[in-house]
Amino acid sequence: MLRSQLSISLDGFAAGPNPSEGEPLGKGGEQLHEWVFDLAAWREPHGMEGGEVNASSAVVERNLTGVGASIMGRKMFGGGPGPWDEEPWEGWWGDEPPFHHPVFVLTHHPREPLEKEGGTTFHFVTDGIEAALARATEAAAGEDVAIGGGASVIQQYLAAGLLDELQLSVVPVLFGSGTRLFPDRDGQSLSLEQTGVVEAPGVVHLRYRVAN
Amino acid sequence: MLRSQLSISLDGFAAGPNPSEGEPLGKGGEQLHEWVFDLAAWREPHGMEGGEVNASSAVVERNLTGVGASIMGRKMFGGGPGPWDEEPWEGWWGDEPPFHHPVFVLTHHPREPLEKEGGTTFHFVTDGIEAALARATEAAAGEDVAIGGGASVIQQYLAAGLLDELQLSVVPVLFGSGTRLFPDRDGQSLSLEQTGVVEAPGVVHLRYRVAN
Repeated sequence: MLRSQLSISLDGFAAGPNPSEGEPLGKGGEQLHEWVFDLAAWREPHGMEGGEVNASSAVVERNLTGVGASIMGRKMFGGGPGPWDEEPWEGWWGDEPPFHHPVFVLTHHPREPLEKEGGTTFHFVTDGIEAALARATEAAAGEDVAIGGGASVIQQYLAAGLLDELQLSVVPVLFGSGTRLFPDRDGQSLSLEQTGVVEAPGVVHLRYRVAN
Repeated sequence: MLRSQLSISLDGFAAGPNPSEGEPLGKGGEQLHEWVFDLAAWREPHGMEGGEVNASSAVVERNLTGVGASIMGRKMFGGGPGPWDEEPWEGWWGDEPPFHHPVFVLTHHPREPLEKEGGTTFHFVTDGIEAALARATEAAAGEDVAIGGGASVIQQYLAAGLLDELQLSVVPVLFGSGTRLFPDRDGQSLSLEQTGVVEAPGVVHLRYRVAN
C-alpha cells in the first residue's frame, strides 16, 4: 500500500508564499507543522526526549508504523536543481535520519546511494515515479511505502492512480497564497472514501482511501 | 454573531466546473450536498417527512437554530445578472422558503421586498455587505445572522473582518476545477481557532472561530 500524509492550511496550501533558502516552507509555512513538534511521538524517533501526548500522538505513531520504505522529491531531500557532482548535498536529514529504512529520492541526476546511520539509505531514482514505487515496494518487503513529500510528489502519484491512502492534517490557518496541494487541473473528478477523522489540538487529521 | 456554513470538496471547491442553468452547482456539484438530503433534520424544515439520523443531524440542527436572519448572494436567491424589472425572478425557493426569517439578498438592482409564506421575506440590498449585515443584525433581534452563500459572499465577509464563524462540510471528492472557496489572494495569512469537528457518513464538518 502506498500512503501519503501531508499538513496543509485550511485554504489548501502545503507551503506558504515565497519559499526561500531561509524559509523553505514559505512565509508562515512552519505553522503547518507546529502541531507535531511538541509531541513525544515525534520527538522520540527524532532523538529527543520528553514531549506531549494528545490526540495527534496515535496519528503520528500510525504514520511511523508498518512503513518499510519511503519516496520523496528532490526538494524534500535537500539541495538545488543542479547535478549532484556540482552540489554533493547531504540532505536536510543529518547523520541519523528518522526514517530507519530505504528512502527513494526522485531526481533527474543520477547519484550513488548515500548510506546514513540508523538504517536509512537514500537511493536516487532517475527513471520516474513508477520505477521509484517498484523499487520502494520491493525494499519494503511487504510493509507499506510512504510518500515523504512534497505536495507535487503526492499529486503525481495520485494522478497516476498509484496512491492508496491520502492523509491530510488540516491546520486552522488561511495562507492566501503559496503551494497548493490541489492546484486546478484538467480531467475527471475523483471520489475518495473517508476512512478516519481525528480531532486534535490545533489540527484535524482526515484520512481517505483512494480507489484506483 | 455572523456564521457561515458551506459544503466543499476536499480540494476546496464550492461548485464543480462549468456551472450552467441546468447544473447551477457545476459538473458533479450536487455531490457536495448528498450528505444532507437524506437527513430528517434537513427534510423536516423543507416540508418532507421521514429521513435518516446520523452524526450530521446535530450539525444541521445547530445550523438551523438561533438564526434570526440570513444574507445571501444574488445567484443564491436566483435569477440572472440583469435588473429585476426585466427579470422579476421569484427565486429558487418556492412559495414557502425554508428560512422562516428575513433574508437579505446582495444585488446591484433595487427591488421591493418579496414576502413569502412561513415568515420568509426577501429584502434586496444594494448598498454593500456592511449595510446588509447591519440590517440583518437588526432584524435578527439578538439571534445570529447566517450567510446562506455562495462562496463569494463568505469570502467578502471574511476579507472584511466581519465573519465570526466558518463551518466547512468537507466531502471526499476531488473536483480538479470549479469555484474555489479560497482562491489565491494577496495579503496577510489569517489564523483561526478550531472549535469543533464532527465525523459523519460521507462528510466531515469542521468549525472555526474567526478572530476579528
